[in-house]
Amino acid sequence: MQTFNQFQAIFEQYMAANRFEKPPAALYEPVDYILSLGGKRLRPAMLLLGYSLFDEAIEKALPAAFAVEIFHNFSLVHDDIMDAAPLRRGKETVHSKYGLNAGILSGDVMLASAFSQLLRLRNKKMLPAIMEVFTRMAIEVCEGQQMDMDFETTEQVSIAEYLKMIELKTSVLVAASLKMGAMLAGASSANANHLYEFGRNLGIAFQLQDDLLDTFGDPNKVGKKVGGDIVQNKKTFLYLQALALADDATKGKLLKLYAAGPYDEKSKVETVTAIFRELRIGEITERLKESYWVEAIGSLRSVEARENGIGLLEKFAENLMQREF
Amino acid sequence: MQTFNQFQAIFEQYMAANRFEKPPAALYEPVDYILSLGGKRLRPAMLLLGYSLFDEAIEKALPAAFAVEIFHNFSLVHDDIMDAAPLRRGKETVHSKYGLNAGILSGDVMLASAFSQLLRLRNKKMLPAIMEVFTRMAIEVCEGQQMDMDFETTEQVSIAEYLKMIELKTSVLVAASLKMGAMLAGASSANANHLYEFGRNLGIAFQLQDDLLDTFGDPNKVGKKVGGDIVQNKKTFLYLQALALADDATKGKLLKLYAAGPYDEKSKVETVTAIFRELRIGEITERLKESYWVEAIGSLRSVEARENGIGLLEKFAENLMQREF
Repeated sequence: MQTFNQFQAIFEQYMAANRFEKPPAALYEPVDYILSLGGKRLRPAMLLLGYSLFDEAIEKALPAAFAVEIFHNFSLVHDDIMDAAPLRRGKETVHSKYGLNAGILSGDVMLASAFSQLLRLRNKKMLPAIMEVFTRMAIEVCEGQQMDMDFETTEQVSIAEYLKMIELKTSVLVAASLKMGAMLAGASSANANHLYEFGRNLGIAFQLQDDLLDTFGDPNKVGKKVGGDIVQNKKTFLYLQALALADDATKGKLLKLYAAGPYDEKSKVETVTAIFRELRIGEITERLKESYWVEAIGSLRSVEARENGIGLLEKFAENLMQREF
Repeated sequence: MQTFNQFQAIFEQYMAANRFEKPPAALYEPVDYILSLGGKRLRPAMLLLGYSLFDEAIEKALPAAFAVEIFHNFSLVHDDIMDAAPLRRGKETVHSKYGLNAGILSGDVMLASAFSQLLRLRNKKMLPAIMEVFTRMAIEVCEGQQMDMDFETTEQVSIAEYLKMIELKTSVLVAASLKMGAMLAGASSANANHLYEFGRNLGIAFQLQDDLLDTFGDPNKVGKKVGGDIVQNKKTFLYLQALALADDATKGKLLKLYAAGPYDEKSKVETVTAIFRELRIGEITERLKESYWVEAIGSLRSVEARENGIGLLEKFAENLMQREF
């Protein structure tokens, strides 16, 4: 069975051979632009990996892999407009480079094109079921993005709501990618669902890890400045858990630090981090992350796959959590 | 067989029973809002009519009818953002009422939800073919909208490009609606394709008629001020045909009237209309419209349908062109 890097490479090759490059140029140039910005092609590679657990002819799954990558990039283009983000992967975002209207319309045509990729799948009998998984995922990702935006203006976000938001915004696409790959390879629905659950729980664990690293990570290993979430007043799991556990005085202090301002960035990060430490938020988050991880691995080990597939996927998941891939 | 008004009523009833009304409210309220603004439900009614030509159990086609209406409204929501339009059917546009981000994201979830409606169709064997028609249409509508936007900043738009633009932006949705209805009812592909061609040509004829009425129509019958397209410097068929036929002096005059400004609206409309008359643009447009109409009716009459379906559809098409429905 191929390694994860090999799946990535096979997918990159397919993408390079399937550039949009057609008129009207103002519509499709932004599409080729965002798709060429790189990224790790995690979702399509996971779809191919999901396929390879049950069948070796992974080329049959390439259109579906392309569909999830196009969908992912569609969501980046529209999210970047909504977040007014100037940069993506160190380059101009689509709307910064081509304008708002291009960002909207090129995003729209990407969403439609993701479906059109699915229609290229040769396995027509499986298509309604694949479409079902994909469409549900697409709707859920929109719902997750809406929840995330709602949270910006909601003072009290519950832990449950936060976990639901990251599940919808991040996890379901990973889960659906794995499941679609498995389905296309003829996996039983039990196996396909185990993979979905693996992806869903892995995605949540990954996001909790992300929240943790942003505050408590080693700046040399994380590759970015620690404390960014605190500076941006992001309602991460850490912050919401701290609010839930703090006494009234500490809670008031936190709310003020995340509302008023401007504050000196460095001392704000230090003050908030100290509160998090005091409340043992790092340990609590670590434990919750661990429980999602255990769930994920449990689901994965229930999958009956060919060759060393499960071991490969488990190893990949470990690397993903360690940010080594 | 039901009348067109009956198809509209059946569809309205289905829509009323299928409101979104779910969380997150900020995502779905705008969807219910735009869908409740009215409109004539032409496309879903045509889909049901297309179905009824071959089978009477039109309730089986209702999810597809809903899909085309959701898609149409998705395109209105995003187009209104791109056109910075404050009003739609006399009410606030979605982005005016709920904000830019809601306009983008609610539009996105509508596009995904249109696909999810298609997945509700009970005829799973037909689904890949239906999805194919729908997805191609969705992509073409985006391309048409892009061409329309491109034209705003292009000085020389050819007649062929203009006709292609209105075909993609307007006609293919009508054509696909009819075809999908026919396919769901088990029509032969010859019959389904005849209906597609009928819808495609009818849509172009309708748009040419629209261009004509805006300049030469009877204000009492058209129901809006005549000359609006001229005031807004819209590159309609009339304008492009005039540019193509005018001598250099007249061409220069037209280009100036459509570029500089501000002009007194009334005298600008009069001057441009006089140029159009001088160049016999009304007659030319009328003749072209007529040729698309003849094509449309020719395709329609090639369809082998049950009962009086073809007659009903022809009568409806006539009313549509007369703006009486």
